[in-house]
Amino acid sequence: MKKPRNLSNLKIFDLLTQADLEQIEQMAIMTNTWPKNSLIQTPESKSDGLFFVLEGMIRLSKSNTAGKQYTVGILGPGSIYGEISSLSFGTNGNYMETIEETHICTIHKAQFEQFLNTHPEFSWKLLEELSNRLLDRDEVLEKLALSDLRGKVLFFLTKLSKKFGVEENGYQKIDLPLTHQELANMIGATRESVSLVLQELSNDGVIITGRKKIIVKEDMARELMETYQ
Amino acid sequence: MKKPRNLSNLKIFDLLTQADLEQIEQMAIMTNTWPKNSLIQTPESKSDGLFFVLEGMIRLSKSNTAGKQYTVGILGPGSIYGEISSLSFGTNGNYMETIEETHICTIHKAQFEQFLNTHPEFSWKLLEELSNRLLDRDEVLEKLALSDLRGKVLFFLTKLSKKFGVEENGYQKIDLPLTHQELANMIGATRESVSLVLQELSNDGVIITGRKKIIVKEDMARELMETYQ
Repeated sequence: MKKPRNLSNLKIFDLLTQADLEQIEQMAIMTNTWPKNSLIQTPESKSDGLFFVLEGMIRLSKSNTAGKQYTVGILGPGSIYGEISSLSFGTNGNYMETIEETHICTIHKAQFEQFLNTHPEFSWKLLEELSNRLLDRDEVLEKLALSDLRGKVLFFLTKLSKKFGVEENGYQKIDLPLTHQELANMIGATRESVSLVLQELSNDGVIITGRKKIIVKEDMARELMETYQ
Repeated sequence: MKKPRNLSNLKIFDLLTQADLEQIEQMAIMTNTWPKNSLIQTPESKSDGLFFVLEGMIRLSKSNTAGKQYTVGILGPGSIYGEISSLSFGTNGNYMETIEETHICTIHKAQFEQFLNTHPEFSWKLLEELSNRLLDRDEVLEKLALSDLRGKVLFFLTKLSKKFGVEENGYQKIDLPLTHQELANMIGATRESVSLVLQELSNDGVIITGRKKIIVKEDMARELMETYQ
């Protein structure tokens, strides 16, 4: 699911004309490259502006006073994040860490506001983006509140394979360095209990696990999820 | 925290001029009144358009195949909801039921889109509204994933008292017909376990419970929450 190498490939800019795109690219004054495992934001250090992930992957997480970690989400190529005035793309207050080498493009607040005010159709795109994230969060909330552990594991696996899956021998390989601990951090469960469920799912033939690799048989997973909801 | 009796009192219209407001009010072609406990939307029946809650209260909820309920949120006076094209205010796929008699004002899709295209500053307001909801959902997600049951109960009580609290003898009375079952539905726990925690909190003097009424000593609750996180 690798994609954008430059801004004009970003889905959010689909509606824009060539002239608009050039204007955006002129505003986008900086492209940063972060090595794998860089901490690019803490809850205390957040910078104003909009950021576009051109390549790579970023993990958003929270951690409580007891040191427990929760993974809010993973941003892949094409994702937007950032805070402008009272507008947040849902990264506020999170830790952000690159999972692999990541290229990020920055647009400053004032320039972006100016662009938005003169391009109302682009506001629609942003409203859509935010409302998609809201729907996504609601789905996660529902599963966290209502599903048993097996249901939660199946939900997150199908979600990840949909977003980051790469086909391999007819199955979806999750193209992500995904440890059992990481999956546990998304679910709010212990690593031990998640490992147990993964073992069961593997025995049942729904997934194939390897070192930092999970292959999901999506049809089976979806079918199972219905019954385990 | 009761407020808007008509559209011009809505916080989201703060920025608008008198002329704009009149335009909005002309678009708002219908005000419906729903009695208490009306089911105004199911996941199968959702209508296009924007809706503004002028007065009353609506519960958003999901329910899974096993019949377990989860309360996504509560909309009070001044809230916006609805779906327009690919823009959702987070009510898509939910059941919506009035908790008390509720007055709702409707703006049709086409009229609203037209207004938005000619009022870019209003897009900012909508973007803010959506990003606030995103932040709110993220906070809930974090608590659902990381807190123990006592931490979750404290979190939802302080959240509700902040949103719907009415001062009573120096404490915040949650002005909401809130049963233990309803609180359990927000947390994704059983009524029994939530009742037990409420009893403990009541013994510790953090809350005072009565019939469908909870009074929260906010300072104590917040302080406790820190330690129970």
